[in-house]
Amino acid sequence: MATSAADEPTIGDLGEFGLIDQLRGQIGDNRQILLGPGDDAAHVSTKDGSFLVSTDLLIEGRHFRRDWSSAHDIGRKAAACNLSDINAMGGVATALTVGFGAPGDLPASWALEMTRGFEVECAHVGANIVGGDVTASDKIVIAVTAMGDVARPVLRSGALPGDVVAYAGQLGLAGAGFAALSRGFRSPKAAVDAHRVPHPPYAAGPQAAGAGATAMTDISDGLLADLGHIAEASGVAIDLDSTTFVVPEAVATVSEALGADPMAFMLTGGDDYALVATFSSQATLPEGWTRIGRVADGRGLTVDGSAYEGPAGHQHYR
Amino acid sequence: MATSAADEPTIGDLGEFGLIDQLRGQIGDNRQILLGPGDDAAHVSTKDGSFLVSTDLLIEGRHFRRDWSSAHDIGRKAAACNLSDINAMGGVATALTVGFGAPGDLPASWALEMTRGFEVECAHVGANIVGGDVTASDKIVIAVTAMGDVARPVLRSGALPGDVVAYAGQLGLAGAGFAALSRGFRSPKAAVDAHRVPHPPYAAGPQAAGAGATAMTDISDGLLADLGHIAEASGVAIDLDSTTFVVPEAVATVSEALGADPMAFMLTGGDDYALVATFSSQATLPEGWTRIGRVADGRGLTVDGSAYEGPAGHQHYR
Repeated sequence: MATSAADEPTIGDLGEFGLIDQLRGQIGDNRQILLGPGDDAAHVSTKDGSFLVSTDLLIEGRHFRRDWSSAHDIGRKAAACNLSDINAMGGVATALTVGFGAPGDLPASWALEMTRGFEVECAHVGANIVGGDVTASDKIVIAVTAMGDVARPVLRSGALPGDVVAYAGQLGLAGAGFAALSRGFRSPKAAVDAHRVPHPPYAAGPQAAGAGATAMTDISDGLLADLGHIAEASGVAIDLDSTTFVVPEAVATVSEALGADPMAFMLTGGDDYALVATFSSQATLPEGWTRIGRVADGRGLTVDGSAYEGPAGHQHYR
Repeated sequence: MATSAADEPTIGDLGEFGLIDQLRGQIGDNRQILLGPGDDAAHVSTKDGSFLVSTDLLIEGRHFRRDWSSAHDIGRKAAACNLSDINAMGGVATALTVGFGAPGDLPASWALEMTRGFEVECAHVGANIVGGDVTASDKIVIAVTAMGDVARPVLRSGALPGDVVAYAGQLGLAGAGFAALSRGFRSPKAAVDAHRVPHPPYAAGPQAAGAGATAMTDISDGLLADLGHIAEASGVAIDLDSTTFVVPEAVATVSEALGADPMAFMLTGGDDYALVATFSSQATLPEGWTRIGRVADGRGLTVDGSAYEGPAGHQHYR
């Protein structure tokens, strides 16, 4: 752990989530904020209505690598992870802003390809880039803010004992692709492609909201990490049934090659931008949603009744 | 000028504005965009109304220096330059998102002080931070997106021959402060302080809109550079009368110490976030606005009837 000269805590000491907690303590509240920091997106009132907004900051070498992904793929993924935040509230993204920092010797074609990637991904939901900023930077920096419409935002805090847990979209593929790329492999294609360009289930968010989802989030840091936020925010216990997960073939292939447990990718792999939500046990799950667990009284997250002891989810400062 | 191996143009070759022009060509259009890239803020429709949005990306060493400015001042300035974009459309900012990248050994207190600075500046207009993102980065990166309400957005493209040109807020002070700091001085205080924390005239934007301003922008890159955008977008000529400018004492002091022309700071100094607008010659200028020129048929920007031959405005890649 990093420690500064005066033994003052550093942001490395606090970690990403510890720092966010402390920063939140500095932030005031006002009538414009219908829902502030702490969910996938904030819900802000306007003079005549409301909108959702979410932001992400992506740094070369940490969130993407130019030798692993094309500019087009990096643009698509940067768009996808933000559009997914709006999706995870049950909303539909309409507008993006993009801040772009890059060294002066970067070919202009790289920036153009990245922008095309943004537009291709945005077209999936009918959103567009509405503004941006360009500046010089030693490393490539991509700052994305997504805004969108929502009828009834689905929060992380609404899960109730007795609810069922379900997910929509892909699980484990991007994590398996990252593991393969990290060890110098360029296959299996389904996993490597999923790491390069995720495929968030954009229709599933508004459908879940329409079906009465009680809580929802997207899976960027791994199912257990993100579902843990729902359990904590809702003040409930959640148990997952590992037999209900269908492991994609590419995840099984990577697991076998690396001697890893495929469930580790399913439960802790990030960057797929699947959705996980809770529904009343009386609700009919929309098409594409797979039931994987149950909400109960209590606290904490378990798999088959026990704490999961696999590798932890991604933490930027750890 | 930087050139890549294959003689492909780099973003350094294109420059900031050239790159922005090319990127704009990649961006589609849709019904949500009432006003897209090219003004101080975009105007986006929602299911029940509209909002303004603008974004900026600030990089340590290029936009701020930790040895020149406190974390609190850097937070205030990062907020101010974005709130100013909403102001420049005649709007009122309501919400900010902040992406923050920093090395793990940065004291947590720095991030907290920066956040307090954001909140102090936001309080001037009643806005709040509604969301953010935190990640590890070698250099400090601050990505800010401001959103706000507007009744009638004032664009850059509405100036008409016969209009008067006026500004509100401070001119030249931040540029003089930057020049002083660059040469190792820590005074005069009014100039150095203005560089550290600008004071955008937040009331002046909505007042100008209410008074019927035909075009408006904020002055981030220098009066000539930013007013040039109005002249170009409106397809008009603008002539400024240098005798109407009141040079602040601190600007005169710095100019004398450095053997510089004070009008260079007034006309080309950036970072004060004053507003410049055009009004019908029949309009009554709101309090705090100073008339400095006139719009005419033709093209281009002149001072006392001639092209200004002073130092150019700030260009990130030049």
